Amino acid sequence: MPDRSENRSVDSLRPFRLDSNVPGAAAGKVLVSAGRTTILCTASIEDAVPPWLAGRGKGWVTAEYNMLPGSTSPRKQRDRGGKVDGRSSEIQRLIGRSLRGVVNLKALGERTITVDCDVLEADGGTRTASITGGYVALAEAIASLPEFHSGDLPFTDSIAAVSVGIVDGEPLLDLDYSEDVRADVDMNVVMTGSGRFVEVQGSGEEATFDKVQLYAMIDLAERGIAQLSQQQASHLSE
Amino acid sequence: MPDRSENRSVDSLRPFRLDSNVPGAAAGKVLVSAGRTTILCTASIEDAVPPWLAGRGKGWVTAEYNMLPGSTSPRKQRDRGGKVDGRSSEIQRLIGRSLRGVVNLKALGERTITVDCDVLEADGGTRTASITGGYVALAEAIASLPEFHSGDLPFTDSIAAVSVGIVDGEPLLDLDYSEDVRADVDMNVVMTGSGRFVEVQGSGEEATFDKVQLYAMIDLAERGIAQLSQQQASHLSE
Amino acid sequence: MPDRSENRSVDSLRPFRLDSNVPGAAAGKVLVSAGRTTILCTASIEDAVPPWLAGRGKGWVTAEYNMLPGSTSPRKQRDRGGKVDGRSSEIQRLIGRSLRGVVNLKALGERTITVDCDVLEADGGTRTASITGGYVALAEAIASLPEFHSGDLPFTDSIAAVSVGIVDGEPLLDLDYSEDVRADVDMNVVMTGSGRFVEVQGSGEEATFDKVQLYAMIDLAERGIAQLSQQQASHLSE
Amino acid sequence: MPDRSENRSVDSLRPFRLDSNVPGAAAGKVLVSAGRTTILCTASIEDAVPPWLAGRGKGWVTAEYNMLPGSTSPRKQRDRGGKVDGRSSEIQRLIGRSLRGVVNLKALGERTITVDCDVLEADGGTRTASITGGYVALAEAIASLPEFHSGDLPFTDSIAAVSVGIVDGEPLLDLDYSEDVRADVDMNVVMTGSGRFVEVQGSGEEATFDKVQLYAMIDLAERGIAQLSQQQASHLSE
Amino acid sequence: MPDRSENRSVDSLRPFRLDSNVPGAAAGKVLVSAGRTTILCTASIEDAVPPWLAGRGKGWVTAEYNMLPGSTSPRKQRDRGGKVDGRSSEIQRLIGRSLRGVVNLKALGERTITVDCDVLEADGGTRTASITGGYVALAEAIASLPEFHSGDLPFTDSIAAVSVGIVDGEPLLDLDYSEDVRADVDMNVVMTGSGRFVEVQGSGEEATFDKVQLYAMIDLAERGIAQLSQQQASHLSE
Amino acid sequence: MPDRSENRSVDSLRPFRLDSNVPGAAAGKVLVSAGRTTILCTASIEDAVPPWLAGRGKGWVTAEYNMLPGSTSPRKQRDRGGKVDGRSSEIQRLIGRSLRGVVNLKALGERTITVDCDVLEADGGTRTASITGGYVALAEAIASLPEFHSGDLPFTDSIAAVSVGIVDGEPLLDLDYSEDVRADVDMNVVMTGSGRFVEVQGSGEEATFDKVQLYAMIDLAERGIAQLSQQQASHLSE
Repeated sequence: MPDRSENRSVDSLRPFRLDSNVPGAAAGKVLVSAGRTTILCTASIEDAVPPWLAGRGKGWVTAEYNMLPGSTSPRKQRDRGGKVDGRSSEIQRLIGRSLRGVVNLKALGERTITVDCDVLEADGGTRTASITGGYVALAEAIASLPEFHSGDLPFTDSIAAVSVGIVDGEPLLDLDYSEDVRADVDMNVVMTGSGRFVEVQGSGEEATFDKVQLYAMIDLAERGIAQLSQQQASHLSE
Repeated sequence: MPDRSENRSVDSLRPFRLDSNVPGAAAGKVLVSAGRTTILCTASIEDAVPPWLAGRGKGWVTAEYNMLPGSTSPRKQRDRGGKVDGRSSEIQRLIGRSLRGVVNLKALGERTITVDCDVLEADGGTRTASITGGYVALAEAIASLPEFHSGDLPFTDSIAAVSVGIVDGEPLLDLDYSEDVRADVDMNVVMTGSGRFVEVQGSGEEATFDKVQLYAMIDLAERGIAQLSQQQASHLSE
Repeated sequence: MPDRSENRSVDSLRPFRLDSNVPGAAAGKVLVSAGRTTILCTASIEDAVPPWLAGRGKGWVTAEYNMLPGSTSPRKQRDRGGKVDGRSSEIQRLIGRSLRGVVNLKALGERTITVDCDVLEADGGTRTASITGGYVALAEAIASLPEFHSGDLPFTDSIAAVSVGIVDGEPLLDLDYSEDVRADVDMNVVMTGSGRFVEVQGSGEEATFDKVQLYAMIDLAERGIAQLSQQQASHLSE
Repeated sequence: MPDRSENRSVDSLRPFRLDSNVPGAAAGKVLVSAGRTTILCTASIEDAVPPWLAGRGKGWVTAEYNMLPGSTSPRKQRDRGGKVDGRSSEIQRLIGRSLRGVVNLKALGERTITVDCDVLEADGGTRTASITGGYVALAEAIASLPEFHSGDLPFTDSIAAVSVGIVDGEPLLDLDYSEDVRADVDMNVVMTGSGRFVEVQGSGEEATFDKVQLYAMIDLAERGIAQLSQQQASHLSE
Repeated sequence: MPDRSENRSVDSLRPFRLDSNVPGAAAGKVLVSAGRTTILCTASIEDAVPPWLAGRGKGWVTAEYNMLPGSTSPRKQRDRGGKVDGRSSEIQRLIGRSLRGVVNLKALGERTITVDCDVLEADGGTRTASITGGYVALAEAIASLPEFHSGDLPFTDSIAAVSVGIVDGEPLLDLDYSEDVRADVDMNVVMTGSGRFVEVQGSGEEATFDKVQLYAMIDLAERGIAQLSQQQASHLSE
Repeated sequence: MPDRSENRSVDSLRPFRLDSNVPGAAAGKVLVSAGRTTILCTASIEDAVPPWLAGRGKGWVTAEYNMLPGSTSPRKQRDRGGKVDGRSSEIQRLIGRSLRGVVNLKALGERTITVDCDVLEADGGTRTASITGGYVALAEAIASLPEFHSGDLPFTDSIAAVSVGIVDGEPLLDLDYSEDVRADVDMNVVMTGSGRFVEVQGSGEEATFDKVQLYAMIDLAERGIAQLSQQQASHLSE
């Protein structure tokens, strides 16, 4: 069985925190952290939709993901000057898709909400923490709109995500960076608060896995996400 | 139960063909088709590796994915002028990762093989057909190298892929475009010839799915990939 | 006298083929080949014109030229990421200008037809074969428009092109790649089916030529284009 | 006399804070705030210098300035995709030049230290706060290097900056955003801890100013920077 | 005291010339030179304003700054292909801001005037000469508009600029390139014809300066600009 | 017969001038003008060759072509920010190829000479005047190299170019812009001083031409280039 830092068991999450008392001018903002991984999620509202959606009385939710240069050592270079960073692009598509999966876009009206996930420190699981925190920032932004002041927000469900993986043959929940680099299989799971799947993305890293391992990882993810969903609900009800 | 074109049953593949008698100057080349979806896969060998891998006596396999403008109607604009197409970038990362999962990179020596997947007609399932065809082009390219003329190729396994999805509540194998746009859930599965998983990527499209549906899709994919693996083997043994 | 492959005489064309039974979703499509040189020409119709032409009741025809990575050995890198490839740009301007030279743009109405020439294998003469094949794809696309179903297409003439050159002091028709690299002078000629010139582009490659050689090349090109024009007409009448 | 928020006098600074207990993996990091303006400054060390400086036994200090999307309302678009943002470029050149003005680059050896200034909330004075905070992050990063553990850092002086301006005809110290937009003249002053000038940049915004006003602004800046220099020293001595 | 070429005293300008008899199709054009530094300034008028200004009945003045490749030795590479040149961007922002400082934009109506400053030879002081010459080209362009044929131009003042600096401890006016590289402090000053400041930008180059030096530089600049303003007025009155 | 400005006959050149007394720091420089068309040609020498030519003891000559914004009315936008301008790219390839056609690259040693052609005023024929002037700048630059001070320059011949065209059915020499826009056929011819062809590029502009017209244009070009070659020789012998 792999040794985990701070004696975590194979099925325990890292300490998870949500803090909305942070600097910024966006309508919704939250600092989400899972262990050392720390991400500033802000949700900004614009009274317009992309051209291809205009005139249909429907809103749009999109996401951008970015690692700050100081979030890693060695320093992460910025995505400037037109260089395509395939990984960032893939991650922000996942975040946007996941959030749209639980929002009633019609109820938003012709508005775009952009959820920005800027990673302040990266220690594994930044994409899943971005989804979990991004949902909270999005909910806060929507709650700031006049028609939703009553608190009845246009969500069909809540959404959260976690990573699982196989290290030394054993399925583990919520991998930190040191576990992630040793993992044979890395899987990200996105689920709703009511326990339904939105995304399942598992990859063997120069390795393969069988059906038993696949099912074990999915079970771990279900349990982790249930806890995260509770923390989201409790944070938003404050 | 959804009506499928040409009376396909829910668990049957579209007609699948591999044809290596095609124009081109690359070391490996194959035209792969699944129904109307048609992709030219070529594998080109270069006697050098990317800078970050140099001097380690190891090779590299990478992939590029591109849709020709005439592959869709309306016309698909080319990826020129520095515009980032997140979808293409995500797909080519998946293809490259999948192929590397079964190649012994050390046995290649300091060479890069680039597998280009150029879509001539797009009718759903282009990324999975790219993997299935890309493996064949890659195998042909490697077989053209002097040290592998004997036919003992440096693969740990073969690799193939297929899409599955849920349409009108029912799990379906190998979706064409008309099914894909109606699908609530879309899943791509990449497996080896010996039946082990390399990638599982399932997404609800403004929808969610439960564990029973997830397992049913995985079972369908297993059966489809077994057939594709056989066709690959039979094509390569000719 | 230079030896030509397959005993071609100085004034004979390579085997030339047009095949419209090819994959793709475009309104017009043809695979054109001259010897090993093979190009997929597709013509896609859009119901709009570029902004600078809008509101004048006139259509537009434009072309894009691209070599697939597997068309050459070593592999041709893709034109992505904003890098300017001067040669491709020059060629696609030539193709577009040549095709517009024989179309009645007013009769098209406010539509844009984009002729894409994607080179599958490059063995010399790709720009001239793109013009000859592009005309066929364009004609097929226009014939698919309701107002031209009768078959009376809005062309003032047909158009075709061929390369000529001087190798070892001797004028040759339709150079393949091995001849092209040895050529002192390289000339591309574009003519109408009725034998009038549209473009004449001759370049000495670190060499010069005199008027007698210039006239001899023009005579060879006239004869080659007459044959290509006949093959176009016969293909389109099927 | 202009009303200032929270009854600030014309020559008083906004509440200024430095906090090094922040997330991140960089060698030096500090969250600097002046009123609502909040910037995360991180300083990352790389064991190499830019090519044009290589082999001269000298180090380099450079800066990057970036506003996070949620730092303003409406949302600030990211600087991606090759678009030139002249303002960011001008600011980061100023920060880099200012910091290099007080560092002994020879003592650094062949290392590059990049000071990243990421604005979390923008309420005026972001470039001057970036310099003041950037100096602290840089000092922390240098102090982490083995040869400087003794605490004798290779600085010739400390450096800090502040903005001054003329609003309603009156010189003011440390403008917030609401004052900045009303200002006729905007000036940024960078000075060392010992009171010498490094940069003086004053601009009339569709307005001009005379010598008396110029000298009054410079006097205000001197006083403000003296206080900031003290806070830097006290933070670094902890 | 530093030796200056051609026995210039510390407070004398280089020979300054304005010549409007130059090639070009722009509404205003002038070749400005200060010693060897030579810049072609052209001002082109367009009957539209940038989108963000449209519909407000107000005009816009903007500037572009560019060094021709042959203006320096070694050759200056062109700013093509999306590479950001921070220095050019900073300079053209300064030129545009300075010119807008003296124009009545409302009187222009919804027009944009672009002042292009193309450096033919660079020997120090190109940004200040661009402002001084740019004002003349702008005035000529405006004078060509029908509503200003009477000669009553919509300027609140004239504008000119000069560089000053500290070399070997001594303040000098109008530095040439050989002086600029030796300077400890470099300052650009932009003033109106009536002697009011528009921009003051002083930088220590790995050096600092005190208040006495700052004031001495400002005095030198005042005197130089007074002479340049007179030459502008005399040129425009011809 | 078309009326030509200033009573030019169909076979007469516009007034043609070469002036080397111009600002700039390049080794060779000349202002070339043909009527109103005016181009600054500079030739800069660098002691290195492009990577693909390194180590072969051979030099390289390349060209860049650029229109200054003020050269046309309305203003020509600059080629910045990665936008591809196909026309400029095509022209500079032509200039470079033409110049290389007469230089002995081996005699240059491992040096690159870049010939920059910056158009100050554009009134037709800018590409041909760039070649004619570019040759002069190149010759001056080469003459400045120590090993060629004796004056025995490494050219196999001189090179010059002119445009011809068909306007109102009549072949004309050296078209100005007003003739160019009315021309049915536009042809650029590049020839050596000894009367041999280097490039012949004729295009019908939505028009076609026959062999008699083609030969007439070539004869006109021959006569024009003979005069230009004489002016080049006389300028260089001064």
